[in-house]
Amino acid sequence: MKAKIYINYKDGILDPEGVTVSKALNSIGIKGIENLAVGKCIEMELDCNSTEEAKKIIIESCDKLLANPNTEIYNFEILKDK
Amino acid sequence: MKAKIYINYKDGILDPEGVTVSKALNSIGIKGIENLAVGKCIEMELDCNSTEEAKKIIIESCDKLLANPNTEIYNFEILKDK
Repeated sequence: MKAKIYINYKDGILDPEGVTVSKALNSIGIKGIENLAVGKCIEMELDCNSTEEAKKIIIESCDKLLANPNTEIYNFEILKDK
Repeated sequence: MKAKIYINYKDGILDPEGVTVSKALNSIGIKGIENLAVGKCIEMELDCNSTEEAKKIIIESCDKLLANPNTEIYNFEILKDK
């Protein structure tokens, strides 16, 4: 089973990489970008039989390690086609 | 117009963050993860009128700054509901 996890900063939390990339794009002449945020996308291949089991592994991984509960939010999708 | 850009390592390129996170999850007792890759997800708000214009800005941004053409691949989706 495959899963994709998206981790982003919460609203109101400064995204330093986003600010830097935004300025850099502007400085090389690329216009038209109003807002930019940089997040993480984690792709997992899971060895489990049910969506519930996959969900459990993903939530445990995010809560215990991947996402900072103070500053970040995560969401995920489970793709069954392994 | 909103867009999401996903940047990942090419097949065969070592993903050091992925390897580290994988080991760390295993070491805190989370089992069942066979494979893990960490990529970037960039969300952009674009000030443009057509999908073609948005596409041009995204491809230029990726080719000139965001993605390393030697080691990374990118793909994107354009969401019209601003």
